[in-house]
Amino acid sequence: MSDLDLAELTAQSLANIRERTPLIHNITNFVVMNDTANVLLALGASPVMAHAIEEVREMVAYAGALVLNIGTLEERWIEAMIAAGEEANARGIPVVLDPVGAGATTFRTATTERIRSRVKVAVVRGNAAELATIAGMEAKIRGVDSVASGDPALAAGLAAARFGGAAVVSGAVDYVSDGSRVAEIHNGHPLMGRITGSGCMATATVGAFLAVEPDPLLAAAEAMIAFGIAGELAAEHSAGPGTFRAELMDAVAALDKDTILARARASVREARPA
Amino acid sequence: MSDLDLAELTAQSLANIRERTPLIHNITNFVVMNDTANVLLALGASPVMAHAIEEVREMVAYAGALVLNIGTLEERWIEAMIAAGEEANARGIPVVLDPVGAGATTFRTATTERIRSRVKVAVVRGNAAELATIAGMEAKIRGVDSVASGDPALAAGLAAARFGGAAVVSGAVDYVSDGSRVAEIHNGHPLMGRITGSGCMATATVGAFLAVEPDPLLAAAEAMIAFGIAGELAAEHSAGPGTFRAELMDAVAALDKDTILARARASVREARPA
Amino acid sequence: MSDLDLAELTAQSLANIRERTPLIHNITNFVVMNDTANVLLALGASPVMAHAIEEVREMVAYAGALVLNIGTLEERWIEAMIAAGEEANARGIPVVLDPVGAGATTFRTATTERIRSRVKVAVVRGNAAELATIAGMEAKIRGVDSVASGDPALAAGLAAARFGGAAVVSGAVDYVSDGSRVAEIHNGHPLMGRITGSGCMATATVGAFLAVEPDPLLAAAEAMIAFGIAGELAAEHSAGPGTFRAELMDAVAALDKDTILARARASVREARPA
Repeated sequence: MSDLDLAELTAQSLANIRERTPLIHNITNFVVMNDTANVLLALGASPVMAHAIEEVREMVAYAGALVLNIGTLEERWIEAMIAAGEEANARGIPVVLDPVGAGATTFRTATTERIRSRVKVAVVRGNAAELATIAGMEAKIRGVDSVASGDPALAAGLAAARFGGAAVVSGAVDYVSDGSRVAEIHNGHPLMGRITGSGCMATATVGAFLAVEPDPLLAAAEAMIAFGIAGELAAEHSAGPGTFRAELMDAVAALDKDTILARARASVREARPA
Repeated sequence: MSDLDLAELTAQSLANIRERTPLIHNITNFVVMNDTANVLLALGASPVMAHAIEEVREMVAYAGALVLNIGTLEERWIEAMIAAGEEANARGIPVVLDPVGAGATTFRTATTERIRSRVKVAVVRGNAAELATIAGMEAKIRGVDSVASGDPALAAGLAAARFGGAAVVSGAVDYVSDGSRVAEIHNGHPLMGRITGSGCMATATVGAFLAVEPDPLLAAAEAMIAFGIAGELAAEHSAGPGTFRAELMDAVAALDKDTILARARASVREARPA
Repeated sequence: MSDLDLAELTAQSLANIRERTPLIHNITNFVVMNDTANVLLALGASPVMAHAIEEVREMVAYAGALVLNIGTLEERWIEAMIAAGEEANARGIPVVLDPVGAGATTFRTATTERIRSRVKVAVVRGNAAELATIAGMEAKIRGVDSVASGDPALAAGLAAARFGGAAVVSGAVDYVSDGSRVAEIHNGHPLMGRITGSGCMATATVGAFLAVEPDPLLAAAEAMIAFGIAGELAAEHSAGPGTFRAELMDAVAALDKDTILARARASVREARPA
C-alpha cells in the first residue's frame, strides 16, 4: 500500500465521520475529559462521557466506538470500563485502550492486564514505555512519561499480538502494527508533547476512525495521520503551548482532503517476523 | 413585554451580577467544571465547586444560586445534589437543573425524576430531547445529543408545568416557558454547538442571573440572551472551535449594555394553553 | 538579600527545572487538573495526576515534589493525600499544600488540619482568608473566595509557624514567610484573578521550584515571581480572560533569564517577631 493510498483512506474516513457523526463513548481521565470531548466534536464525531456502572452498558449500545483511558484510575472506574467493554464486545462495537502510565505503578500495569483479560481491544495506543511494558519488554518509565525503551515497531508488534488487534506506539514517529503489517506515520509536531492530553486526544481520535473503518490497523494509522497533520498546522499559528492547544482544535475542525493528501507522510509494509 | 424591555432587563441584571458578585455553587460534571467556573468569573459572578456530602449544605448557604448538572453522574454525587438542593430550598436559594442525557439512559432519566421529587427547581435547562423526555413527550435521543423531538415551545411548557418553575429548551432558537409565558431567544451561533459544555455554561449563566433576578422565566431568558450574544461576538473573532472557546470567555467578560441593547433578539408572549 | 539576588535565583531554578524535568505528583481538584498539568509542562516539569490509594505511594516515589490541593474534596481523596504525603515525607520529597476554601466549610478547615497533623508540609499557599484561617486568625470567607482578612504578612508568618515550612499568602502583593524571613512579590496582574485555577497553578509552580530549590521560602518566592511575570506578559497579549488563559501558558513556556531579571519586583527581609 502506497502513502497516497493511506492518505486517501484517511480523507475518506474523515468524510465518513463527519457524515455519520458516530457517538464515541469515553471512560477517560479527569485531566483530559474536556480536550477529548472537544477534539471529537472538532472531528465531526459526537462524544459522550459516562462512567457510572448503572448506565455504561446502556450508553455504550449507542456508540460507534468505546474509548477506555486509565489516566486517573480508581476501582469503580475500572469496573465500569470492564462492564462497558464487555457490552461493546457483545455488540461488535470496537474498543480502544490507552494504558496511561502502565509500567509506572503496579496498579496501572495490573489494571491494563485486567482489562485485557476481560475485554477484546481493537486498538491499544500509548507511548513507547507503556507499550513495551504491556508487551512484556523491558521499559524505563518515570511517572506517566516514557523515558527509554527499545524498538517501537517491535513493541507495537508484540503488544498487538498480546491484545489481538492493532497497537500504536506514539512518538516522533508513530508505529502501528497488527502483527502482520506495520505502518509508520511521520506526521506530528513537538508542541504536541508540550500540552497535556495530546496522547489521550490521539486515542480518542482512533476511536472516531474505528467507528467508520473496521480494519484496526488502518483506523489507527489514519487517526494518527489526521491528528498529526492537525498538530503541524496548529504549530504554524502558535506562539506557545497555550495558543497551540486552541489552534489544535481549529486545525482538526478545518482538516480537509486536499490538506491530508498534501501532507500525509505515512507508509505501511508487511511486518518482519518478531 | 417588548424586545427592548427584555434587553434592558438583561443589561440591568448583568450589572447587578457584576456589582454583587453572587456566589454560584455548582455540582456539575467533570467535563465542564473548568469552563463553567470560567464563564461565571467572566460574567462577574463567583463560582464554587463542592460535591462532598460533608460540606454541600454548609457551602450552599453562601450561594446566590445552586447549579445541578448530571453530565457525569454517580450515586454519591446524586445524594450530594439532593442534599444541597434541599438546603437551598429551605433557604430560598434558587436551584437550576441541567438534565444532561435525560432520555439517553434509564439512570439519567430516573435521576432527573429523583431530583425533581426532592428539590424544587426554579429553572430546568436542556436540549429538545432532554426536555421532551422529562416532560413525558416522545423524544429520540442518542447519547447526550438531541436527535429529534417535537415542538420545543410545547416541551418547555410541559417541563415547566412538571418542574414548577421555568424551563428552557436550547436550540437554534431558545424557548423559555413558565407555563403562562413563553420567551423566544434568537441569539446564539452554530459554533456554540461545536464545543463541549456550551449548554452547561448556559445553565451556569442561568444560575448567575437567578441570583439577581427572582422571576425564573426572566432570569432564564436574560441568561440565554446574554450568553447567545457573547457567542455571536466570539464567532466573529474565531477561526474554529478552539479559538472560539477562548473568545467566548472574552466576549462574556466584555458584554455591556450597549451591545446587549443593539443585539438582543428576543420576545415574550402569553402561552397558548397546551 | 537584594531583589537582584531573588531574580537571579528564580532564573537559575527555572533553568534547573527545564534541565531536570522533575516529575510533579498532583492530587488536586477536578476544576484545575488540566490547567495544572499544562502549566507544569510549560515550565519544563513533568506532571502526573494519580489519586488511587492503591498507587499513590508508589507514584510519589518518582516525584521531585508532591502537590496536594483540596479544591474538590471527598473522603477517599483525603486518605490518598495523606498516604502520598506520608510516603513523600519518608523519602524526603517536599510537599506543597493548597487549602482551597479552608474556612469556608468545616469540612475544608478540618481536612487541612488533618493533613497538617499527618504530613510535614514544606509550603502552604492560599489566599489571605485561607491562610488566616489555618493560622488561627479571624477571617471572612465566602465560598472559596477571600473577602477580608488581616495583615497578610502576619498570616503568612503564623501559618508558617504552624505548618513548619514556608507559607504564601497570594494577593495583589504576595507574601512568603518561613517565620524568620518575609519575601514580598509585587509581580502579577489582575487578570489572574479573572480565571479559575490561577491560585492552583501558582501552587503547582511552587511544587516545580521546590523540586530544584530546597529552601522552602526561596522556592515559594521564586515560583511567585516566575508565575507573576508570566501573568504580566500574558496580559499584554490578551483581550479578556479566555485569551489570557491561553497566553498565560505561552508566557510561562517563554520565560527566560533576561525577562526575569528585567521584571522581577521582589524583596526578602528578616521577619519582625509576631
